[in-house]
Amino acid sequence: DFLSALDEVHPAFGVNDEELQQCVQNQIIQFANNVERILSDGQLFIEQVRKSSRTPLVSVLLHGPPGSGKTALAATMAMSSEFPFIKLISPESMVGYAEVSKISMINKVFNDSYKSPLSVIVIDNIERILDWVPIGPRFSNSILQTLLVLLKKRPPKDRRLLILATTNEKSVLDDMNMSDCFNSEIYVPNITELSSVDIVLKELALFNDEERNRALNALKQGGVELRIGIKKILTIIEMSRQDVDKVEKFVGTILNMAPHKVETN
Amino acid sequence: DFLSALDEVHPAFGVNDEELQQCVQNQIIQFANNVERILSDGQLFIEQVRKSSRTPLVSVLLHGPPGSGKTALAATMAMSSEFPFIKLISPESMVGYAEVSKISMINKVFNDSYKSPLSVIVIDNIERILDWVPIGPRFSNSILQTLLVLLKKRPPKDRRLLILATTNEKSVLDDMNMSDCFNSEIYVPNITELSSVDIVLKELALFNDEERNRALNALKQGGVELRIGIKKILTIIEMSRQDVDKVEKFVGTILNMAPHKVETN
Amino acid sequence: DFLSALDEVHPAFGVNDEELQQCVQNQIIQFANNVERILSDGQLFIEQVRKSSRTPLVSVLLHGPPGSGKTALAATMAMSSEFPFIKLISPESMVGYAEVSKISMINKVFNDSYKSPLSVIVIDNIERILDWVPIGPRFSNSILQTLLVLLKKRPPKDRRLLILATTNEKSVLDDMNMSDCFNSEIYVPNITELSSVDIVLKELALFNDEERNRALNALKQGGVELRIGIKKILTIIEMSRQDVDKVEKFVGTILNMAPHKVETN
Amino acid sequence: DFLSALDEVHPAFGVNDEELQQCVQNQIIQFANNVERILSDGQLFIEQVRKSSRTPLVSVLLHGPPGSGKTALAATMAMSSEFPFIKLISPESMVGYAEVSKISMINKVFNDSYKSPLSVIVIDNIERILDWVPIGPRFSNSILQTLLVLLKKRPPKDRRLLILATTNEKSVLDDMNMSDCFNSEIYVPNITELSSVDIVLKELALFNDEERNRALNALKQGGVELRIGIKKILTIIEMSRQDVDKVEKFVGTILNMAPHKVETN
Amino acid sequence: DFLSALDEVHPAFGVNDEELQQCVQNQIIQFANNVERILSDGQLFIEQVRKSSRTPLVSVLLHGPPGSGKTALAATMAMSSEFPFIKLISPESMVGYAEVSKISMINKVFNDSYKSPLSVIVIDNIERILDWVPIGPRFSNSILQTLLVLLKKRPPKDRRLLILATTNEKSVLDDMNMSDCFNSEIYVPNITELSSVDIVLKELALFNDEERNRALNALKQGGVELRIGIKKILTIIEMSRQDVDKVEKFVGTILNMAPHKVETN
Amino acid sequence: DFLSALDEVHPAFGVNDEELQQCVQNQIIQFANNVERILSDGQLFIEQVRKSSRTPLVSVLLHGPPGSGKTALAATMAMSSEFPFIKLISPESMVGYAEVSKISMINKVFNDSYKSPLSVIVIDNIERILDWVPIGPRFSNSILQTLLVLLKKRPPKDRRLLILATTNEKSVLDDMNMSDCFNSEIYVPNITELSSVDIVLKELALFNDEERNRALNALKQGGVELRIGIKKILTIIEMSRQDVDKVEKFVGTILNMAPHKVETN
Ligand SMILES: Nc1ncnc2c1ncn2[C@@H]1O[C@H](COP(=O)(O)OP(=O)(O)OP(=O)(O)O)[C@@H](O)[C@H]1O
Ligand SMILES: Nc1ncnc2c1ncn2[C@@H]1O[C@H](COP(=O)(O)OP(=O)(O)OP(=O)(O)O)[C@@H](O)[C@H]1O
Ligand SMILES: Nc1ncnc2c1ncn2[C@@H]1O[C@H](COP(=O)(O)OP(=O)(O)OP(=O)(O)O)[C@@H](O)[C@H]1O
Ligand SMILES: Nc1ncnc2c1ncn2[C@@H]1O[C@H](COP(=O)(O)OP(=O)(O)OP(=O)(O)O)[C@@H](O)[C@H]1O
Ligand SMILES: Nc1ncnc2c1ncn2[C@@H]1O[C@H](COP(=O)(O)OP(=O)(O)OP(=O)(O)O)[C@@H](O)[C@H]1O
Ligand SMILES: Nc1ncnc2c1ncn2[C@@H]1O[C@H](COP(=O)(O)OP(=O)(O)OP(=O)(O)O)[C@@H](O)[C@H]1O
Ligand SMILES: [Mg+2]
Ligand SMILES: [Mg+2]
Ligand SMILES: [Mg+2]
Ligand SMILES: [Mg+2]
Ligand SMILES: [Mg+2]
Ligand SMILES: [Mg+2]
Repeated sequence: DFLSALDEVHPAFGVNDEELQQCVQNQIIQFANNVERILSDGQLFIEQVRKSSRTPLVSVLLHGPPGSGKTALAATMAMSSEFPFIKLISPESMVGYAEVSKISMINKVFNDSYKSPLSVIVIDNIERILDWVPIGPRFSNSILQTLLVLLKKRPPKDRRLLILATTNEKSVLDDMNMSDCFNSEIYVPNITELSSVDIVLKELALFNDEERNRALNALKQGGVELRIGIKKILTIIEMSRQDVDKVEKFVGTILNMAPHKVETN
Repeated sequence: DFLSALDEVHPAFGVNDEELQQCVQNQIIQFANNVERILSDGQLFIEQVRKSSRTPLVSVLLHGPPGSGKTALAATMAMSSEFPFIKLISPESMVGYAEVSKISMINKVFNDSYKSPLSVIVIDNIERILDWVPIGPRFSNSILQTLLVLLKKRPPKDRRLLILATTNEKSVLDDMNMSDCFNSEIYVPNITELSSVDIVLKELALFNDEERNRALNALKQGGVELRIGIKKILTIIEMSRQDVDKVEKFVGTILNMAPHKVETN
Repeated sequence: DFLSALDEVHPAFGVNDEELQQCVQNQIIQFANNVERILSDGQLFIEQVRKSSRTPLVSVLLHGPPGSGKTALAATMAMSSEFPFIKLISPESMVGYAEVSKISMINKVFNDSYKSPLSVIVIDNIERILDWVPIGPRFSNSILQTLLVLLKKRPPKDRRLLILATTNEKSVLDDMNMSDCFNSEIYVPNITELSSVDIVLKELALFNDEERNRALNALKQGGVELRIGIKKILTIIEMSRQDVDKVEKFVGTILNMAPHKVETN
Repeated sequence: DFLSALDEVHPAFGVNDEELQQCVQNQIIQFANNVERILSDGQLFIEQVRKSSRTPLVSVLLHGPPGSGKTALAATMAMSSEFPFIKLISPESMVGYAEVSKISMINKVFNDSYKSPLSVIVIDNIERILDWVPIGPRFSNSILQTLLVLLKKRPPKDRRLLILATTNEKSVLDDMNMSDCFNSEIYVPNITELSSVDIVLKELALFNDEERNRALNALKQGGVELRIGIKKILTIIEMSRQDVDKVEKFVGTILNMAPHKVETN
Repeated sequence: DFLSALDEVHPAFGVNDEELQQCVQNQIIQFANNVERILSDGQLFIEQVRKSSRTPLVSVLLHGPPGSGKTALAATMAMSSEFPFIKLISPESMVGYAEVSKISMINKVFNDSYKSPLSVIVIDNIERILDWVPIGPRFSNSILQTLLVLLKKRPPKDRRLLILATTNEKSVLDDMNMSDCFNSEIYVPNITELSSVDIVLKELALFNDEERNRALNALKQGGVELRIGIKKILTIIEMSRQDVDKVEKFVGTILNMAPHKVETN
Repeated sequence: DFLSALDEVHPAFGVNDEELQQCVQNQIIQFANNVERILSDGQLFIEQVRKSSRTPLVSVLLHGPPGSGKTALAATMAMSSEFPFIKLISPESMVGYAEVSKISMINKVFNDSYKSPLSVIVIDNIERILDWVPIGPRFSNSILQTLLVLLKKRPPKDRRLLILATTNEKSVLDDMNMSDCFNSEIYVPNITELSSVDIVLKELALFNDEERNRALNALKQGGVELRIGIKKILTIIEMSRQDVDKVEKFVGTILNMAPHKVETN
């Protein structure tokens, strides 16, 4: 599978590996079927780029609620391609840059990619790269226009490029006519099953078996509709680890953040 | 016909041929009557510019849905003119440019054209050149004003110019009073007939005859109203090529993107 | 008459004749009474400037639908004055200029005019000089304010100035309080009579007599309300000239663009 | 009276006389009682500034419809003061200046005035100095704020200042809280009486007695409510002077511009 | 009392006395009880700053209708403190400054004050310092933010600061969340009693006793609700002083400006 | 407890202690249970950062009404951590800075923190750092975007960071999608119990025992719903200290500012 394949990746040049690794600091836990399916979809796009000369550009948008794992999954796909050029465009690497600097930085990554026969570019958190804020709304139109063009610009002859982008604000991208620029979309959902929580808890080793069962039972009794990102669960687990009553803290925090309770029998 | 004529074109100077060729990377497939008709209309405008000294400026707007083939058709017409000056103004060649640089780049192309007795300028994707975004809406008024003037500015004595422009956003150009600046308009439609799909499939050689018939039958049974750009079909064909079940992937993707199903008997 | 007078004009200095001539490339055809009347009104204003010392500044706004002939008429009037200083301020001559450059260019033309005892300034297409676009709306307020002042600024002692301005957007100028700045207005209408079309066709020699009669009859039968600018008719004539069936092309194009048909008996 | 007094004015220094004279090029005609009254009110303010040490700053706003004579009256008052410092701040003298230059120019005039024991500053056409346009609306807030402060800033010890400002847009100044900055206001009305027209016609010597009576009778019969600025009447008189039928042209133009007719007996 | 105390003030350094004196050019007339009360409230704040080490910063907002005497009262309080550092921040001293210059000028005054053990800063006419205009509305957010911070910033150890600010636009400051930044507010009302007018008239010596009584009686008979700023009354008195009939002018002007008449018995 | 622990803090380097101390000038008075609870919550976050390597970044938002003690509490928590790097980002330290300077200053604090194994950053009064004003609304989107990224940016390997931020405008931060960036929130309430007032009065030693009881009784009788920030109470106490009747002044001021009275029995 792709996760074990990942372990053996030794990218040649043009790969900022450390940055990408940091996006997957807490690994990819296989807590549900869709995790496997998303990664295998990613593998298909990688193959299409590798093989079809008629579609030298493939672009994919990973979207979903905050903290559902989009960045970690996109970074994992990118690294698994083993393409000679793999780069991350992220808001973190452009903090405090002026608009023009951001644009020329983005532009440079694309131009560099055109020199490699096979490339992957991860564009993380597009709405943040665009300086989007719903009040107004305000955003950088110059950066938007740059991305609108680059997302559709064909690489030169004999060059192939895979673009993996992530966003929490799919509807904003729709309003900007940006969604149309992608060839495909992948939805990354929240965790909604107790079985997924069980797998995560085992992996993180917060509880012993008795505590874990107690926690899961308490969540079941709580009668809330589970809808929580993997990132949030990981944080709650670490907070609970400091507490005297870990089970109580873990269950209590999750039940408190649930938006609305459902009837249970 | 114009397509075979195209093969023999050897433009003299002032022609950035490579760029234009790239716009027609997947050739022009004669999948419907309107393809032939659009190209022959283009030929008429080329003749008018070549011959009538009273109308030294002819401007044509190619408009239609995304991916319907506007850019490829405009580039094909331009190259078929064999005029000594043929230039492309496109958003791709101005990524990251400041507003003033874009304007002076556009202006230079027009001024250069005025030096050739016969010229064609292709202005691709006008709304993107204008940095248009529907939120706001926002756009570059300076670039707009530049184009509004240049689209109507008569070339100097003994100089003739054909302008071919493309857009997905005809109604936006209407709102900007830009549509009035063109002498003529050509509508480039989506593919709506199974017979067109058949021709494209044959040309691309995705299936053998049995598979192709199976695919077309499945689309017929699907009972959806076909409305798809040639560009999208080409992408779906290449995606399907990677899949184990190519027919299933091809038919499934097209049926899934159909906006609304119609009754079939 | 003024047209023959025009032939003999040999302006002394400060006259950019070529630019003005280009505005009347296809001559002034006397296709209706109002053409003569507009030119004779212009002659009156020229006389007032030449003779009355109490009104050293006379400003006239030519307005009407797109392509009705405003620019050609204003240029014709200007040249017929035979004043030593005749200058054209037009959007074409300021393409790509920054706002401040446009203002100082406009300002320079006025200041230069103040050095000649008698001057004409043609300000062509005011809404385009103002970078007007209805979306927003947006326009250059600095240029507007410059014009608002210059249109009312008295020339120095013993200097006289005639200003001839044109616009398609009279109502926009009203909203900007600019219309009040002009001493007089001249309306330049579309062609609405078949007899005018007849005169134009004869002048342009597109048809032989039989063809012309056939075309006019067909237009009559078409039962449409004629409302078309001279500029558009000239373009249609040239397009038809390339066609195999010139009459059919000419009549068809005009009937197709008619906004609404009227009852005929 | 003030008009004859004006003839003898020989200002010492700091007076740009020529500029002020140009504002009254066509003299002040005593066509109605309010003309005399406005000028005598002006005289009172001049006396207050000259004598009362408790009110070293007096500011007056002349407002009224376009062309009613505001600028000519303000200039006349200013010159009649015979103060050693008399300056005009007008849009004409700042055409094409950047905002900051306008502000420092305005500021300089005030600072210079503080050096003279007695000063008059005429601020002509405030809405134009502010780059006001009703679309938006837009205006220069920096210039506005500069004027708002300077209009209320007390001159230094032993310095007295009279400010005379004019505007067509009193209600705009109200909305900007600028009207409150003036100590007094003077309304300059349009001409509404035939007797006033009679006086003006005599003064300008357009007609002989018979013609003048015929013209006035025709206006009376026309049954329109007279509401016309002195500036407009002067222009119509000069236009009519060029015409073959002067009476017809004069009467016709005035009757045509009347907004609405009234019942006559 | 504070007014006589004022006479003996001889501030040491860091006091721009002249500027402050100019704010009280026409003295403080004790025309009503609230004048005394406002000044004694000011004295309390001065004492709090002088003595309580727990509240090293005290800020007071004087607000009221235009011309009610806010600036004169704030300046009087400031001078009566006899603190070694007394500075005025006023729009008059920043005419024509750029936004950044204004901010650094304001900032400097505060930083200078932090060097004195005891300081008073008068911020006069805050809405004008903010370049406020109700159309839009528009104002300088940078200056606003600077004041919002400085109004709450504690002076360094062993430094005490009293801030006295004035405004006509209390509700605007409310909308900007600025009112909350002040520890206290003082309302400065208009004159509403004839007895106050009487005191002012006596002080200014416009009339002899008979005239004064006649004027007051006429105002009483006028039956208008008196609501007038001390500044306006002082202006009317000086205007009347130039007139032949001083009583008539004085009474007439006041009655004319009254917003609405009330029933009298 | 944390307050006594605080006394012994001797931070090593990278700590601007003085600035932080100034935020707690009037100490932390234990006037209610929630004060203790808030500080102990803070202690938990400090421990999580110190110990859990899986959550190297913990961010907490302290929000509540103006003057409820947010800044003092955040500063107290920060100092109690004894981490080697403790820095305050506050509007006071950036008065008059340009937007870019603010951003690079903020950025520098974060980058410096990444060099220390354990760090605390206090971001005080976020809405002021953002130049927020409700009119418009207006704010610095560049600073906002910088904070949105830095609040979620993971520190490098083996570095841990605690972010403590304060705001009066939680709902504004919600509208800006900023609230989602924090791991946790702490609400800092107003004082609502007379027992709290009693504790504060004892601590500040404004009254003797008899006076204090009289004051509390009067407040009880007043029948108002108590809702007042600790900061305001401290100011009222100091004002009352200057007054002749301290009890009357203290009780009167509090009763006057109460928004609405409630029924008492
Ligand atoms: N199956 C999984 N899929 C994704 N992430 C996982 C999975 N299992 C564990 N993780 C961990 O969960 C975290 C997911 O965080 P990530 O930043 O990718 O989420 P996100 O959706 O990009 O969040 P945001 O909306 O804030 O951008 C990572 O630390 C990752 O290592
Ligand atoms: N008959 C045809 N007309 C146009 N394009 C065709 C045709 N047959 C094949 N093609 C290929 O289809 C593609 C059309 O893409 P093109 O970029 O021209 O579409 P477009 O309408 O300009 O898209 P967009 O809306 O994204 O600008 C090209 O690769 C072209 O080679
Ligand atoms: N009687 C006429 N009046 C005006 N133009 C005429 C006449 N007869 C022939 N023409 C020709 O018609 C054309 C009119 O075009 P012109 O640019 O003056 O129109 P316009 O109203 O200024 O157009 P636009 O609205 O685009 O500015 C010119 O080429 C001119 O030579
Ligand atoms: N009684 C009068 N009052 C004012 N102007 C008069 C009078 N008699 C004659 N004039 C002449 O009438 C003209 C008035 O024009 P002026 O520019 O002063 O009007 P205005 O109200 O300032 O116009 P605008 O609204 O365009 O600024 C001047 O040329 C002046 O010499
Ligand atoms: N009792 C008084 N209180 C205030 N000012 C007084 C008093 N008596 C006389 N004056 C004089 O009245 C004038 C008040 O004007 P001041 O500029 O202080 O008013 P303001 O309210 O600040 O006006 P604005 O709203 O224009 O800023 C000053 O000249 C002052 O000397
Ligand atoms: N229990 C307490 N909690 C917080 N502050 C206290 C407490 N007891 C006393 N104080 C003092 O009260 C004051 C609280 O002011 P602080 O500036 O922290 O409030 P704030 O909520 O940040 O105000 P603002 O909304 O203006 O930012 C400080 O001077 C602090 O020393
Ligand atoms: Mg992410
Ligand atoms: Mg295209
Ligand atoms: Mg024209
Ligand atoms: Mg005027
Ligand atoms: Mg004041
Ligand atoms: Mg605070």
